[in-house]
Amino acid sequence: MQDRTHTAETEPGDEVTVAGWVHEVRDLGGIAFLILRDATGRIQIKFEKDEMDDELVETGLEAARESVISVSGAVEEEPRAPTGVEITPDSVEVIAPADPELPLDPSGKVDAELPTRLDNRTLDLRKAEVQAIFEIRSTMLRAVREEFHEVGCTEINTPKIVATGTEGGTELFPITYFGREAFMNQSPQLFKQLTAGSNLERVFEIGPIFRAEEHNTPRHLNEATSIDFEGAFCDHHDAMDVVEGVVKAAYEAVSEESADELETLGLGEEGDSEFSVPDGEFPRLSYEEAIERVNATGELDDQLVWGDDLSTEAEKALGSDVGGHYFVTDWPSEIKPFYIMDQDDDLSTGFDLMHPRMELVSGGQREHRYENLVEGFEQQGLDPAQFEYYTKMFKYGMPPHAGWGLGGERLLMTMLDLDNIREAVLFPRDRQRLSP
Amino acid sequence: MQDRTHTAETEPGDEVTVAGWVHEVRDLGGIAFLILRDATGRIQIKFEKDEMDDELVETGLEAARESVISVSGAVEEEPRAPTGVEITPDSVEVIAPADPELPLDPSGKVDAELPTRLDNRTLDLRKAEVQAIFEIRSTMLRAVREEFHEVGCTEINTPKIVATGTEGGTELFPITYFGREAFMNQSPQLFKQLTAGSNLERVFEIGPIFRAEEHNTPRHLNEATSIDFEGAFCDHHDAMDVVEGVVKAAYEAVSEESADELETLGLGEEGDSEFSVPDGEFPRLSYEEAIERVNATGELDDQLVWGDDLSTEAEKALGSDVGGHYFVTDWPSEIKPFYIMDQDDDLSTGFDLMHPRMELVSGGQREHRYENLVEGFEQQGLDPAQFEYYTKMFKYGMPPHAGWGLGGERLLMTMLDLDNIREAVLFPRDRQRLSP
Repeated sequence: MQDRTHTAETEPGDEVTVAGWVHEVRDLGGIAFLILRDATGRIQIKFEKDEMDDELVETGLEAARESVISVSGAVEEEPRAPTGVEITPDSVEVIAPADPELPLDPSGKVDAELPTRLDNRTLDLRKAEVQAIFEIRSTMLRAVREEFHEVGCTEINTPKIVATGTEGGTELFPITYFGREAFMNQSPQLFKQLTAGSNLERVFEIGPIFRAEEHNTPRHLNEATSIDFEGAFCDHHDAMDVVEGVVKAAYEAVSEESADELETLGLGEEGDSEFSVPDGEFPRLSYEEAIERVNATGELDDQLVWGDDLSTEAEKALGSDVGGHYFVTDWPSEIKPFYIMDQDDDLSTGFDLMHPRMELVSGGQREHRYENLVEGFEQQGLDPAQFEYYTKMFKYGMPPHAGWGLGGERLLMTMLDLDNIREAVLFPRDRQRLSP
Repeated sequence: MQDRTHTAETEPGDEVTVAGWVHEVRDLGGIAFLILRDATGRIQIKFEKDEMDDELVETGLEAARESVISVSGAVEEEPRAPTGVEITPDSVEVIAPADPELPLDPSGKVDAELPTRLDNRTLDLRKAEVQAIFEIRSTMLRAVREEFHEVGCTEINTPKIVATGTEGGTELFPITYFGREAFMNQSPQLFKQLTAGSNLERVFEIGPIFRAEEHNTPRHLNEATSIDFEGAFCDHHDAMDVVEGVVKAAYEAVSEESADELETLGLGEEGDSEFSVPDGEFPRLSYEEAIERVNATGELDDQLVWGDDLSTEAEKALGSDVGGHYFVTDWPSEIKPFYIMDQDDDLSTGFDLMHPRMELVSGGQREHRYENLVEGFEQQGLDPAQFEYYTKMFKYGMPPHAGWGLGGERLLMTMLDLDNIREAVLFPRDRQRLSP
């Protein structure tokens, strides 16, 4: 586009046309400064009122904040300018004027509540901190895919419109599909399994999942991004190795490639940082060890006994005790889903990967034996006939396989210590929010 | 997983345990060969009946085709074996027996109709040709993302559950969202624009789109993968440059990284290849030139006149004439959507990228002027109030921006010369098909 020859990252000596938003105007009387902002940063534009054309000065200084303007002129060194350079403009053009009444302040000087921010996400995304979150999200997903590539996975895309949910009819959004009832998929699990059972063997998908949960909490979304792995000839140990690699790769890439964004978020090396790349292996605690450690903290009113699930309080106590990511393995079979393989009579191959703040991953080796799977559906009160499209493939040589699902927003939220999961997604969907 | 120490790509001299599917058994009397298949290829297992343990021979040779087995033994050179090596087994274990009545033949010797293949996709994916398509799909998407990264784009994920469609209520699947009416999104366009209008500036998304089209043709899907770009301070020329780069990057990566898969599909350098990396710039034909060239082919019964859309027949004639990818630009404004910017009174900035077989991309510079946009909704008979969540952001400094959407399955289908778009997606959704 001809309006722009350079970004705000320009050097002294250049004759440039920059274009971006009016971030701020500081009028000191005889001299005034306009700070222009674009994707790369900010640059100072100097207006010397007595020495410049009146119309040019007026155009620049009367442009409302957040107006889009282009400025042509020479870039000069100016140690007092925020980036050490400034432009003396030959011409200023207003490309898209902004209404002076902004619903929120992108300079971040005036705080806005989250609903106001989400209602005006375009303006909100012009804040350096918010931009940083989504730049990091992009870096994180790229690193996750590269790690999958490294360990020999094929990327797949599975359908989001489905005839039945993974675990039956609970928590599904119903769709009208050409007069038939269908649902938005709550997990790609069945489809991952159907592809891992083929020559593809190791597959991954990053895509949306939909859950009609009534919960409206800082850690639940009704539409989320799921990072999914499934591998044939893998057991739960292999699956844990893969997810540990993926999580570490995400942290490492963000540390290396998004240092500026971490700095912007106050998570850089200079700050009182909450961000650190996990070092060493993630501890793999058995369920038995986990409940013993929880009980030993003395944080819970009632001691946990064998067969109890780990409550939010128990997870919190254990997270503080461990102090980093950890797996919980060897769960009692009865508190893991029927499609997770048993190790023996009463232990499951299911595992969870925990961050001290919350659960990130649930996975395990899958039941690949046709008879056991069909029996599992029946015991669950589900009609196996409804899942025949899936179960029948288990009659034709379904290899042992294992996999997991990792919440993309939870990974980002815990990595960046965000308070609310809605900070980790551009346009969140919750019980109340359907737009933008 | 302990069952497997090596894949089928093993070397002579190794002591291995391989695991995979029984692809074929050839019993020659005193000697028999079992071909074991895994993700990496095939390997021959030799059974010398008189010299080996009877139970071992029986286990191997009685395993039904497509059963999953593991085999331990020494790898030896054998020039007559398909891959030049074979395993003399010390032990054979059946891990997952297959029903001898297979609904389709993964060796590909017996053809199956597409519906049978899709009903039994796991078995179908065990065919080398089908596996190759999805390996290439994965390579293609990876290359597309890397190209976006090269040109400074941030990856975004936008919601699939929306309050209104991009162009109103047509061709949308309705959802019940906590008692409210909502829809599955038919295009991320509005959300891409809302993010490109922020500091992110250049964004891309690869994700599902949903269209309740009644069409049931070899080139339509009701759920498809859309590759989307939107860039602030971009015009339609910039947008065309980006998509041209993306398409070429996809072809180049497949050419370089998926040579074996292309060979499997008969598209390799050896074969009578339909696959070639586009060379040179894609021609950019104005609409006026396009209709002149169509008319000059003499292929159409009725000559095209200014204002006619390009029919399928016209596209076909033009595609044969041009012989490769090409853009059509400078359309009459009245046959492009209202949200596409005009160049002047009667020409639009809209463009299409065509493959000789079909349209791949539709794009253009967007209308970024608030008043014009709201007026456009009204002229279209749409209620601007329903789109206020979107239009209101245009009041606060929305820069000029341009973008496009590229059909992921169409890109793969045309690249690999597939007959039916259902070949390009694992689990297609069409008017009839809702599972698997």
